[in-house]
Amino acid sequence: MLTTADFTRSRKLIITVAITGGQHGKEANPNLPEQPDEQAQDAYDCYNAGASICHLHVRDKQGEPTADLNVYREAVYKIKAKCPILVQIGNAGATVTDEKGNRSCSPFEDRMKLFDIEPKPDLITINAGTFHINDIFFPNPYEFNTRFAKKANESKIPMECETYDIGHVANILRLADAGFLRKPLHFSLVLGSTGGIPARHEDLLRLVSDLPEGSFWQVIGIGKAHLPITIAGMCMGGNIRTGMEDTVYYRKGEKVRNNAQLVERIVKIARELGREIATVEDAKAYWEIGD
Amino acid sequence: MLTTADFTRSRKLIITVAITGGQHGKEANPNLPEQPDEQAQDAYDCYNAGASICHLHVRDKQGEPTADLNVYREAVYKIKAKCPILVQIGNAGATVTDEKGNRSCSPFEDRMKLFDIEPKPDLITINAGTFHINDIFFPNPYEFNTRFAKKANESKIPMECETYDIGHVANILRLADAGFLRKPLHFSLVLGSTGGIPARHEDLLRLVSDLPEGSFWQVIGIGKAHLPITIAGMCMGGNIRTGMEDTVYYRKGEKVRNNAQLVERIVKIARELGREIATVEDAKAYWEIGD
Amino acid sequence: MLTTADFTRSRKLIITVAITGGQHGKEANPNLPEQPDEQAQDAYDCYNAGASICHLHVRDKQGEPTADLNVYREAVYKIKAKCPILVQIGNAGATVTDEKGNRSCSPFEDRMKLFDIEPKPDLITINAGTFHINDIFFPNPYEFNTRFAKKANESKIPMECETYDIGHVANILRLADAGFLRKPLHFSLVLGSTGGIPARHEDLLRLVSDLPEGSFWQVIGIGKAHLPITIAGMCMGGNIRTGMEDTVYYRKGEKVRNNAQLVERIVKIARELGREIATVEDAKAYWEIGD
Amino acid sequence: MLTTADFTRSRKLIITVAITGGQHGKEANPNLPEQPDEQAQDAYDCYNAGASICHLHVRDKQGEPTADLNVYREAVYKIKAKCPILVQIGNAGATVTDEKGNRSCSPFEDRMKLFDIEPKPDLITINAGTFHINDIFFPNPYEFNTRFAKKANESKIPMECETYDIGHVANILRLADAGFLRKPLHFSLVLGSTGGIPARHEDLLRLVSDLPEGSFWQVIGIGKAHLPITIAGMCMGGNIRTGMEDTVYYRKGEKVRNNAQLVERIVKIARELGREIATVEDAKAYWEIGD
Repeated sequence: MLTTADFTRSRKLIITVAITGGQHGKEANPNLPEQPDEQAQDAYDCYNAGASICHLHVRDKQGEPTADLNVYREAVYKIKAKCPILVQIGNAGATVTDEKGNRSCSPFEDRMKLFDIEPKPDLITINAGTFHINDIFFPNPYEFNTRFAKKANESKIPMECETYDIGHVANILRLADAGFLRKPLHFSLVLGSTGGIPARHEDLLRLVSDLPEGSFWQVIGIGKAHLPITIAGMCMGGNIRTGMEDTVYYRKGEKVRNNAQLVERIVKIARELGREIATVEDAKAYWEIGD
Repeated sequence: MLTTADFTRSRKLIITVAITGGQHGKEANPNLPEQPDEQAQDAYDCYNAGASICHLHVRDKQGEPTADLNVYREAVYKIKAKCPILVQIGNAGATVTDEKGNRSCSPFEDRMKLFDIEPKPDLITINAGTFHINDIFFPNPYEFNTRFAKKANESKIPMECETYDIGHVANILRLADAGFLRKPLHFSLVLGSTGGIPARHEDLLRLVSDLPEGSFWQVIGIGKAHLPITIAGMCMGGNIRTGMEDTVYYRKGEKVRNNAQLVERIVKIARELGREIATVEDAKAYWEIGD
Repeated sequence: MLTTADFTRSRKLIITVAITGGQHGKEANPNLPEQPDEQAQDAYDCYNAGASICHLHVRDKQGEPTADLNVYREAVYKIKAKCPILVQIGNAGATVTDEKGNRSCSPFEDRMKLFDIEPKPDLITINAGTFHINDIFFPNPYEFNTRFAKKANESKIPMECETYDIGHVANILRLADAGFLRKPLHFSLVLGSTGGIPARHEDLLRLVSDLPEGSFWQVIGIGKAHLPITIAGMCMGGNIRTGMEDTVYYRKGEKVRNNAQLVERIVKIARELGREIATVEDAKAYWEIGD
Repeated sequence: MLTTADFTRSRKLIITVAITGGQHGKEANPNLPEQPDEQAQDAYDCYNAGASICHLHVRDKQGEPTADLNVYREAVYKIKAKCPILVQIGNAGATVTDEKGNRSCSPFEDRMKLFDIEPKPDLITINAGTFHINDIFFPNPYEFNTRFAKKANESKIPMECETYDIGHVANILRLADAGFLRKPLHFSLVLGSTGGIPARHEDLLRLVSDLPEGSFWQVIGIGKAHLPITIAGMCMGGNIRTGMEDTVYYRKGEKVRNNAQLVERIVKIARELGREIATVEDAKAYWEIGD
């Protein structure tokens, strides 16, 4: 069981920052970085604060989520021009609304086009299963995931595996057993989204105890449990994702000022806990990314 | 926690038999009852063996899953003509395949038509969340579930809530909190289907410990864990579903002869465990179904 | 984790019967076998019913628990004269009461003398930790356990390791790591005694998930949870102990008629569950006991 | 379940500091405060750093653990003369070694004399069960605990209940059910001592989920898991004990400089986590201690 792992032997802490997200906008927090220039500055500040990975969604000129490759290109380019932080692309694309008002993520073909982003992203997300997240339809069938994983492997872009429930871990293992994912696996355990597993401590422990030995994992805690559940994960030896995609409040009643503020808090706690902060070079070693 | 409940105080055991299912056919087990006459005889035999609820899916003349109301009507009519077993309709309808080969359950509107079955079913299923089950798309968004539950309430047909993962329990509580489901809730914890939570003992315990106090629940164990996981559930004070929808093997290498054989086994074990078997009248009392 | 083990691959079921126990007497159940002749007949009936191991405590002529070696010898001799059931000696000896009314198990030196029983017992118990069981002092410090285990190893008598709480499993691993116990370890997980871990399903699962891979284990369920917790253990792939040491009631309000009645019930349930019953030869193979 | 409690609603964090302990001495860490003057200064520094409770064991002039009431009196007097930190007395007294080299805590009668300490301690410990801790015999039978609790109640000294395993929680509930402890109960969950439950995250969660609703609790993490397991407890809404009784290392390879250093670290992390630090007045309110 990973959960009994000696915390003292855990590796350096990789901090991923999800700076923007694909759902809420400036109405939720006016400090949310939306345009490529804002995002590049924000990613740079986070890099300086200690983040080694930037998880990226992009927005159009109106601040609406978009899967427009030109916007992705501009954002990735501008971030990489500022600093060597690793860029990780979420594979949901953008929320689209049909004529009946039903919301869903981007169509499969648009999601496959994410591999056409230039400069090439360092990391990409694979989502472990179909469900409605926050009442938005999010299809991730096995067949699509095999296509997506195949393309990621051909493109030599390592995948982080986002799971939103217990069955999702089994879905990832099915992909791995079929040869679509290489070990060690990198899990992002998402807790607290509507439609997925809640963000209780027993949920985290349950997910972690299901991971194959040798896996790497981070906690993604959505909403008001963001802080306690991610720090609990750090205490178990896991990595952490923070950022305004996951929480728009710094603490109760106080909105996040910028993403770097969230990164700084994790760094401060990690230092007190004796966990060293991974550099970009350390994160590359984790993911076996060459230069 | 329900899981610490004193087994000795548990109520009589309700045995539900899912005689046919909506996926595999006679190729999986030639003894699967498919036509209404076969189903009526099979349900009658199960009733005599100790089942109080018959969970029903129907097939067309070729044995293919169908949501044809005429077939439902014939099957329900013939079952009810034979014996007073309660008839429960699964709300997925039938698997349909589109031009690209993608499989999904019946469209929402066909699923809403299940309320037009005459004679009126005694019980109906609500499925707690969207996912791919056995690579078949099974959409159960909150909005559809509110419509479905509203209609069930208007029709005075009690609902069993089928959950396939941890987040699904939260989805059901969301419906209950919004007033669409009356307490006590009746959970059917499905374990072992591809895409859902596996059928390990810790998964069962985890699900059970999430249920609100006073809930009723049964275990639905799919595939080779069918027997040990349902009996473990019985040991915890839960009810049991068995039937050829859930397992086509009686034991390793030996196909089920008929559904009554599965019911008889549960009855034998229950008697040794000191759990009394619920009659149809007992099951009506559980579900607060009047005469 | 053992708990995710495929039940279908579990080995034959070893049934151990604890025919007498060292605490309650005929006041609790007049059918309790106390004298060697009664014990031999009872063990023989249990052997015929399907038990392969007889866990033994003995009584004096007044029916009081005793550690008198002569009584042990007579009981073991008479049991072995009747049938080849394996005889396992509990290492607590007998409850003694001091001048102040404090009760405890036999002194260490009397417990060491259990190795002088002739005919030699097939198996012996090591108890994993010190605690008050049912308000009786039961010291099992590490130092004594190392002496006891050393002697058992010299005497070539395999040990079952009785654990009464989570920390006790760690105590056994400490003994194993220090070379006093050979792998695979044989755990007897005792649940439900006053002072030890309760007999809830989560307790059982928690204990089982702590065992080193490849360990064998049985459930010992004390009191009213005896039946559901032992059968739950059988569903997880574990072995079972039953007997009037563990429960004096067959079911609520009905006292056990004889130990064979308890064994027969386990056999019936095991057969329905598809678990084959281990013979004495099978049990010897488990424990690597030569002829 | 407490474990699902909304962290954001958790009360202010009570920090208890166990400044000295009853086992290791200056050989383990030369900075361990042993004499009353050292202890008073250390407690005062901890109070200034944010601790509201000082858990106290005392030493003789040679630094050996002692149950000498005169030493207790001097230490308590000197601490209280410096600052209003609450003083809590551990009820094991001191480790004594008999002629055979067996070590145990103080005899029962010496432990009962702890109520004669003047000035009266603010809080006292009751230990939930008998076991060998670090191979030292630590008897805590029910009968002694009823006497101890009765005396504590008569003396109007609130008790914290130290538990070292799952069964210990049941022992405390037995005392509470019999009227010896008032609710809300105050649990100190000790993890990581040899002989008790290990300090894995699942152990903590398991203990916490067994506590009656409305209970207060703190984590006591012994040894190298001290920091991650106590911080995980803080993330679940629990209180924390730190101090050189629990860990002599500040981090790997670096010995604790003084107890205040440990308190300061907890305060820093708590502040980042948004948990306010309880003052002595807050702690009194928790424990319903009047002025």
